[in-house]
Amino acid sequence: MTPAPARLLLRDLAQLATPARAAAPLRGPALGEVVVLEDAFVLCAGETIEALGRMRDLPALDGDVVELDCRGLCAIPGLVDCHTHAAFGGDRVDEFSLRAGGASYEELHVAGGGILATVRATRAAGEDGLRAAVELHRSWMLREGTTTFESKSGYGLDRETELASLRAIRAAGGVPTWLGAHAVPPEFADADAYLDFALAEVLPEAATIAEAADVFLERGAFDARQARRYLEACRDAGLALRLHGDQFTEAGAIPLAVELAARSVDHLEATGEGGIEALAASDVVGVLLPASALFLDRPMPPARALVDAGAAIALATDFNPGSAFCESLPLVCSLAATQLHLSPAEALAACTVNAAHVVGRADRIGRLAPGYRADVTLLDAPDWRYLAYHLGGRVVARGVVGGELR
Amino acid sequence: MTPAPARLLLRDLAQLATPARAAAPLRGPALGEVVVLEDAFVLCAGETIEALGRMRDLPALDGDVVELDCRGLCAIPGLVDCHTHAAFGGDRVDEFSLRAGGASYEELHVAGGGILATVRATRAAGEDGLRAAVELHRSWMLREGTTTFESKSGYGLDRETELASLRAIRAAGGVPTWLGAHAVPPEFADADAYLDFALAEVLPEAATIAEAADVFLERGAFDARQARRYLEACRDAGLALRLHGDQFTEAGAIPLAVELAARSVDHLEATGEGGIEALAASDVVGVLLPASALFLDRPMPPARALVDAGAAIALATDFNPGSAFCESLPLVCSLAATQLHLSPAEALAACTVNAAHVVGRADRIGRLAPGYRADVTLLDAPDWRYLAYHLGGRVVARGVVGGELR
Repeated sequence: MTPAPARLLLRDLAQLATPARAAAPLRGPALGEVVVLEDAFVLCAGETIEALGRMRDLPALDGDVVELDCRGLCAIPGLVDCHTHAAFGGDRVDEFSLRAGGASYEELHVAGGGILATVRATRAAGEDGLRAAVELHRSWMLREGTTTFESKSGYGLDRETELASLRAIRAAGGVPTWLGAHAVPPEFADADAYLDFALAEVLPEAATIAEAADVFLERGAFDARQARRYLEACRDAGLALRLHGDQFTEAGAIPLAVELAARSVDHLEATGEGGIEALAASDVVGVLLPASALFLDRPMPPARALVDAGAAIALATDFNPGSAFCESLPLVCSLAATQLHLSPAEALAACTVNAAHVVGRADRIGRLAPGYRADVTLLDAPDWRYLAYHLGGRVVARGVVGGELR
Repeated sequence: MTPAPARLLLRDLAQLATPARAAAPLRGPALGEVVVLEDAFVLCAGETIEALGRMRDLPALDGDVVELDCRGLCAIPGLVDCHTHAAFGGDRVDEFSLRAGGASYEELHVAGGGILATVRATRAAGEDGLRAAVELHRSWMLREGTTTFESKSGYGLDRETELASLRAIRAAGGVPTWLGAHAVPPEFADADAYLDFALAEVLPEAATIAEAADVFLERGAFDARQARRYLEACRDAGLALRLHGDQFTEAGAIPLAVELAARSVDHLEATGEGGIEALAASDVVGVLLPASALFLDRPMPPARALVDAGAAIALATDFNPGSAFCESLPLVCSLAATQLHLSPAEALAACTVNAAHVVGRADRIGRLAPGYRADVTLLDAPDWRYLAYHLGGRVVARGVVGGELR
């Protein structure tokens, strides 16, 4: 007889809040439909949620059960950060300080700062250094309630460092995305020559580690023709597709994402009415990154217009050393409420169930429901909406990851 | 012989950063002059800093010394939050959620939300409830690196609750400010009738507990004539003077602050060129509250113009349940760098030495220097500028308050 799986009971929760449905990315009014139970419990069996409900409906439990007194805490699904760049060496605090004094992100990029500064530090870090960095960043994310994170490579841009980045992300439990087309490294004459190399020499092995591919479609990075070439090759290698698009300029990202049935198009700070309509008519999720817009003092993405038009959106941190040194999804939810005019319920769904769709795991994470993975974020708050309301505070008390208290 | 005071050595700090001077509130280029030592120590003797410097200059230490290994940490002065409203009952998460859906702060105020909603909850809390609330908020602030906080009353607006608020602030170690003129409570016909009461019935005892008085000079609250009456009476009772001014409209706060030699005028989101010039030509400190502007999605104060014109500024959280549920000065520093275009050095000085001037304690706190109080904030960072750079992260590792490790 095998021993019964360990059970963990989160009891006497002030509230439990979870998106109600997950069959497809939530959009329109359904994005704001959150189920809230007062005086609730969550029962985890091994890695899975066995039951949840109100305390008055808690059944008698046989066998060993570890109980956690959750008075004064609220349970929400473990947060899902579907857009980060966590595999990097060094930092960009010098550049940040210069920018505070007035230099623009694009000016710093042209002056040799920007992404290529991090490429140099990332190549110098070595595989052990990258593993340590991603593990550290994962621990920061967990403190802020993120129990599943996606991370892109893209600061190596050579074969060895791109593959090491993807392995480091997987080793830390992250969902790896090959951002082979992030920037053109200095050893190549132009973007086409770099893509020749990347698709021939890196893609075959990257496709065995990564789950998706991503491209930075932007003035000064890759244009729509180059992005199409890269993404089609990655699709043919079995990878799901994502795009960085409309961050500074509209350069064709949304039409390309729709045509190629990408999982997401991310950023959208510069998206206009045509883009909003095209995205709303598609199955592509728009991933909004308000911490990046704040960090760069750029316009916020048109979140309210996207939701009202019927587009599916997700929220993520964009954690990276240059344009969003921010791993906190609770802060992103505060920005969503104050800057993007989303309700706390819409923000919650956007960084749980909808983000789970972006990383291809909506059948297992992003909701609190029987059969889902026992990933629970506990908020130190009398009301779950403190997730957005408690700006910059330590609103996350602790997390449960796969049934294990952290 | 009395025993030697206990000594605490913070050793092997990655960096130590402190404003260089404190004789008067720093302004102009001096605001950005921070002394940075690499590989440093701070030696505390009892409640006081005995010495600091580079590790290579650490003298041999006789007697009992508790040593803390600070590798990977940076030391900055304990942060000083010179503008908070920490004495309140309840929360305003319902209002916050409605506002995320589009209602304005002023509309909610008119609809019976806003300050008066918190007045009801604060009166209901009782003195024990208020003491517990201020103590909780103080503990949140300390986690975010604040070792000295000012707090206003102003959610009581009756004799009993105003005095209980001031006592609760003092009991928690805060610097109490009597915000007797925050709003007109519903039991009074108008602002003048309320001021008749407050100045006759509350001021005499409030002046024995509080160190300063503050007034909300704004459309819908108190006008310049009423503010003058309140402040002159408070000055005559021995209180230092402060004003909430130019938050939504310019209504004469800066000229009044200058005329009455107030310590500070706070908010300034709506301040125009004339106000900037008047403030720069005065000794009044402009206290900027960017978390409040963010929380309300309002314009940021003209910080860069104020500093460039030569005004002395400070930064604070404005922590309160309605317009800035944010106790994090590190987040305020991030907003200062990204939204106010202040350098990390300017931001540091603004929430240490200049804030210490606003609370009348610049001879003892706000700098790391021998003879100053041993209030030290330790950052989990290789570079002290992560204070602003690490947006929304848990950048504060721990604090030393009066020589005691927390």
